[in-house]
Order: sequence, then C-alpha cells, then structure tokens
Amino acid sequence: MITLLTDFGTADYFVGAMKGVILSVNREEKIIDITHEIPPHDIRAGAFTLLAVYETFPPQTVHVAVVDPGVGSSRRPILVTSCNYLFVGPDNGLFSYVCEREKEVRVFHLTNDKYFRAPVSHTFHGRDIFAPAAAAVASGVAPTMLGEQITDYVLLPPIRPVRGRDGTLAASIIHIDRFGNCITNITRPDLADKAFARTSRLVVNGNEIRSFRQYFAEGADPSEELFAIWGSAGFLEIAAHCRSAAQMLNADRGDSVLVKSAL
Amino acid sequence: MITLLTDFGTADYFVGAMKGVILSVNREEKIIDITHEIPPHDIRAGAFTLLAVYETFPPQTVHVAVVDPGVGSSRRPILVTSCNYLFVGPDNGLFSYVCEREKEVRVFHLTNDKYFRAPVSHTFHGRDIFAPAAAAVASGVAPTMLGEQITDYVLLPPIRPVRGRDGTLAASIIHIDRFGNCITNITRPDLADKAFARTSRLVVNGNEIRSFRQYFAEGADPSEELFAIWGSAGFLEIAAHCRSAAQMLNADRGDSVLVKSAL
Amino acid sequence: MITLLTDFGTADYFVGAMKGVILSVNREEKIIDITHEIPPHDIRAGAFTLLAVYETFPPQTVHVAVVDPGVGSSRRPILVTSCNYLFVGPDNGLFSYVCEREKEVRVFHLTNDKYFRAPVSHTFHGRDIFAPAAAAVASGVAPTMLGEQITDYVLLPPIRPVRGRDGTLAASIIHIDRFGNCITNITRPDLADKAFARTSRLVVNGNEIRSFRQYFAEGADPSEELFAIWGSAGFLEIAAHCRSAAQMLNADRGDSVLVKSAL
Repeated sequence: MITLLTDFGTADYFVGAMKGVILSVNREEKIIDITHEIPPHDIRAGAFTLLAVYETFPPQTVHVAVVDPGVGSSRRPILVTSCNYLFVGPDNGLFSYVCEREKEVRVFHLTNDKYFRAPVSHTFHGRDIFAPAAAAVASGVAPTMLGEQITDYVLLPPIRPVRGRDGTLAASIIHIDRFGNCITNITRPDLADKAFARTSRLVVNGNEIRSFRQYFAEGADPSEELFAIWGSAGFLEIAAHCRSAAQMLNADRGDSVLVKSAL
Repeated sequence: MITLLTDFGTADYFVGAMKGVILSVNREEKIIDITHEIPPHDIRAGAFTLLAVYETFPPQTVHVAVVDPGVGSSRRPILVTSCNYLFVGPDNGLFSYVCEREKEVRVFHLTNDKYFRAPVSHTFHGRDIFAPAAAAVASGVAPTMLGEQITDYVLLPPIRPVRGRDGTLAASIIHIDRFGNCITNITRPDLADKAFARTSRLVVNGNEIRSFRQYFAEGADPSEELFAIWGSAGFLEIAAHCRSAAQMLNADRGDSVLVKSAL
Repeated sequence: MITLLTDFGTADYFVGAMKGVILSVNREEKIIDITHEIPPHDIRAGAFTLLAVYETFPPQTVHVAVVDPGVGSSRRPILVTSCNYLFVGPDNGLFSYVCEREKEVRVFHLTNDKYFRAPVSHTFHGRDIFAPAAAAVASGVAPTMLGEQITDYVLLPPIRPVRGRDGTLAASIIHIDRFGNCITNITRPDLADKAFARTSRLVVNGNEIRSFRQYFAEGADPSEELFAIWGSAGFLEIAAHCRSAAQMLNADRGDSVLVKSAL
C-alpha cells in the first residue's frame, strides 16, 4: 500500500503520472491520496500533514511525500524506514516531524537507478525517482538495495513550543484547516501542570482566549466565541462554532500563540 | 466497497485519515471518493449529492457521508440500511432524501464502541466512528451488532415542490453545478399534466424561461439563451449552452423557481 | 485498469457517478483519476494533459477522457485503440495529440447500446455511455462489438510549432501548470540544429529569455530570473525558481513564443 502527499495540485498531469509509474511496476498496488494541496514548496506544511495522518494507516504502508523546491539540485532522494512505516521523498526536512515520533529510524540515500524511471528528468523526481522507488519498496525490495544508509539527513527545527523563564509557553500556529481552525504546536504534555493549565489563557494577535471546550457543538457563550480544544491531530486548536477562528483572529500560519498563566 | 462524501475538502489530512482507518480494518477494502467539497456544514447540499449518485453503485455498497456541524454534541452516529444499500454518518438529516427514495429503511444508533477507533476524539467522528463502523459493516458485521434500531431519526423537510391553489408550482434551486446549471427540485411527475407542462414557463429572479430542450448542444435561439432541460440527476435543470445559467440569472441555491401555466 | 480525465470538477456527483457505473459492471475494476480540473469545455487542455500522462500507465490501460461541450448533440462517442492503449470519449479532437504519437490507431463509433447505461441521458454521457463502454472494453469486450470502425474522426490542428522562412520558430504556450511554468509546444527535434539552438533566444510577450537550465534549483542569476528548461512532458518550458513564470510574463495559454536565432 502506497500513499501520496504532494504540493502538485490535482489540475495537472503530475499525480496521474506518479500513479501510472507505480502501477507500471505493480498493477495490483493500492494507491491512496492523502492530499496534493500542500501549498507549493511549503515543506513545513507537508511535514505537519504527514505527521497528522501517517499512523492511521496499517503497518508497512509506504508513504510518498513530495514537496520539493530543490528538485534537480544536489538535494538527495531518500527512503526513511521505522519500525512501523516507510517514507520516500526528498531530503529537505519533510520527514522531520515523523522522525521525531517514530522509533528505529533509518535513512537511505536512493542511488540505485535500477529502481528509477529512465531517463530521470531534472524537474519531476516524483514520477522518475520517488514513485518507482516506492513501488519497489512496497513490492518487497530491501532498503539496502536502493542505496546506502546516511545519518546527515536534513531535519527541521523541532515542532515543539518553548517555555520561558516566567513559565509562559511560546507556541505558534502550525496549520489552519478548511474550517478555519487554528492548530497550534501545543500538545498535552505541554499543559500537564494542571494548576498552570487551569489558570492559563491563550494570546493570539492581541486576542485572549479563555474558554476551553470538549466539543465543537457545545452551547456557546456569545461573549467568548473563540475557544481552545484538543484537536484530532493531538494538538491544541483554536476554534469557533461553525465559524472560521482564523478569520476572527486574522491569523496566519506561523503566528505566535502565547500561553500565559495567572500563577 | 465504501464510498466517501464529506465537507472536509482535500487540502487537510481528514480524508486520508478516514481511508487509513478503513484500510487498517481491512487492507483490501475498495474506497471510492464521491466528493469532499460539500460546502462546509451544508447538510442539504450533502443530502442532494448523495441522492444524485448513490444508485449508480452496486448493491450492498456502504456510503459514508459526513457533513457534521454537530460533531461532538449529543447528535447520534447512525447506520441506515435499505434493501439495496447501507449508509453511515451523523443523524442530522443527511440521509433524508435517500430515505425518501429507498425501501425497507431501517436506522441504527451506533453505540458499540468495539467498532470505534479508540480513543474517540470530540472533533473528528469521521475518522473515529464513521470510518471504522463502515469498515465493520462492509466486512459483514450485522447492523444489530453495532447498535439498536431507532425510529426517531432526523429528517429534513421533503425535497418536493409545493403546488398552489392556482396550479402554480413553487419550486426552488437545490444545487448549482460546476458548469453553472441550476438544478431544481422539479421531477417528471410534477409536470405529468401535459397540458400544464406544454403551456408553462419558469420564473427565476424575475427572468422567464420558456425554452425546453433535449440536448445541451442544440442550436440556440440567441433571444432565448436560457432553457430548461431534464438533468442527469432526474431533476429539471435551468441551463445555457456553454455558459453559466447561474451567473446569467444571478441565482443562488435556495432561490425560488415558479412554474406558471397560461391555462 | 481505467483512468479518468474530465472537466467535471470534484465538487459535483459527476465523477462519483462514473465510478459507480464502472464498478457496477465490474466490482474489481481499478479506477485511477488523472484529473477532473480541465477547464470547462477546453478540449485542447484535455488533449495536452492526456498526452503528458497516458504513457506512464501499463499497456492495455483504458483511458476515459470527457471534455464534451457537444454532449447530447450529434457528435459521436468513440473508442480509440492503438497498439498500446485504449481511449474512450467524445469525437471532438480530445484524442488528437495521442493519435499523433501512437501507432496502429483505429477509431470505433460507439453505437451498441447494449453496453450503455439505460436510459441514456442527454446531458451526461460520461456516466451513461463512456463509463459503461470503458468498463466493457476493460473487461475484454472486443472493440468491434461496440461499434463500427470510422476514419473521419475529428482531429485538432497538430500541436507542432511552425518554422518561418528566416528560421524563426513560431511556437506557443500550450499549458500553464500549478507552479506557473509555461509549457511550450517545442520539442527536442525542433531545436536539433545545435548552432541554431545555441544562439537562440525566446521571445514571449515582449520579454526575452536567454537562459537555459538543466535544473529548477540551479543558482539563479538575478538579472535573468526566467529560464527555459526541458520539462517532464517532453516540451520546452519557461520557468523561474520558486516563482510563477506565467505571472512574471503575464502569460496565458495560447500566447506566442518566438524562437529567434542570431545566426
């Protein structure tokens, strides 16, 4: 089973070409689209979306991710293996967040062009390298057949928030979803101190959010339309019932989220 | 075989996560996307699209539909069975139009969390309840294993137009498609009276439509660019050749369509 | 294996209905989406995208393409066979570019309504004719069972550029992709004269492009941000590193591209 996550959009021939190449290796391969609407060249957005979804798939799934502003340069094509999954794509940090979470991570530089499509174009490694290499891996070819293990692969800065001396948590918005929910990088361990969590408020673009909810559809206090909620990707989200929190906050991805406590 | 119809869009991890969960139940399951671009929270739009497409699938297909503004509240997750198909989603009227058409409809409240993903989040029942329950049903688990039958499920008002005392049919636009065709809620039985139909005209936003066509590509009378046509979903549509009727009429979904006869 | 390429978008029930019909013929059929975002009624765009992708699929794949402004008129539904692939769709030129490239092309007029969905609507042949006919072909039904061979099928003007008396190549932009790359209709044989190619420059909307690159990510000379590159579909593209060449050139599909040599 192979999943695809790219910034290719769905209007061009790019995604279809990757599928055609995979199916030319193995007509029976199951191919699942995660999304192709990662904003163009936005490696962090791709890394977040992959993190949010990869564990829902059965073990040994091969996740192909292509957000690749460096295509055709010297950036390396890689295969990442962990005890549960395999990942194929460019060595530009796209698999960083997954590597933070997975165990027994090993990374291989894809060099064996026997498993590439010939000739390899300079502009479309999704079709010419990542798709056929993933098809080979999914068909049982051993990682060591595809290239040598490396240890100097690219990692993004960790996704975690930073705690200041006064206890304030300096976090940020790492994703805004279709419904305008603002996903922060705050996880449950960051709010494990119950006294801190109980007295804390979120500050985003000058707006304070004091309300914490279990459900989207809970009865809303009109004076506090914005609320924080543990979201489905495991992060704290800022949301509003049937409205876009991002619009209400004039928030963009990357915006600062401060968690301050009255303690 | 499982189909998916949601308002999740395709840019986020939501749809991928539902597929991952289904395939974690059954690696061989066939999953078909209907659409994920139902306008956010628009239950009627979801109900219409499901109605327009569900019968093209083979019997025993499991149709999962998630347009779910009430996620996390007390609204119930349900399984609907008929003599031909199965449907899984929220109890908010999304399956109303299908229930109007199908025979031997039974509705079950999904309560057996053995068939849910654990833990169930408060914000993403598509992944945590509907996907695994649908995968169970598609794998042959009996509806009665998933929960108890209920009879007080939510129904939307019927999709049918209303006939006035003078014979005028008060209908409405229930969908506008990509090409700008305006799908009304008028079906062939509504125009079964041939004398009425032959002498009738449609009035939409002050515009009269007098022309009725068999084909989109018929030679157009430039003075009557707008025409009515029996559409592929079984409803009367207002269309224009290679132009958007919705733009020409400044029409939105929900707009009134009056069918008046000179009789 | 059946691929789908349409201008139906993904918000409506259209694509789902085609898949339902195919799976009603053969529950095991593998269906792959190429794209459904061909601009509405844009036959040339559909023809280009099909050309760019069809050969990545394994032999005997059935490619269904529906960009069909003439649906319901007297335009014919056709099946195109070549030594490698099969194509199903309307006879309006959509398969022209493929026919230019493929060998042993034969075209059949689909007339045997035994292989259609009944009743055939006037507005949705994708569901009622092309999908079931493609499913029949993919299941092994012989082309001659579906209709009679024809030779007067519709062909678009060839996609090739024209060489003027002074050697100037009059080409054009045939596609603009998601990243803003401008795909021209220039292929390697057009620039086979090395002296010509080495001294030539491209002129688009009054802009001269003198730089030719192997990779997207090569170090850019800021004074020459636009460059020409051999693209993944086999055509010369005008691109810019991590920027939209189309925006920089204010270019649209169809715009003229002149290749002039100093010779």
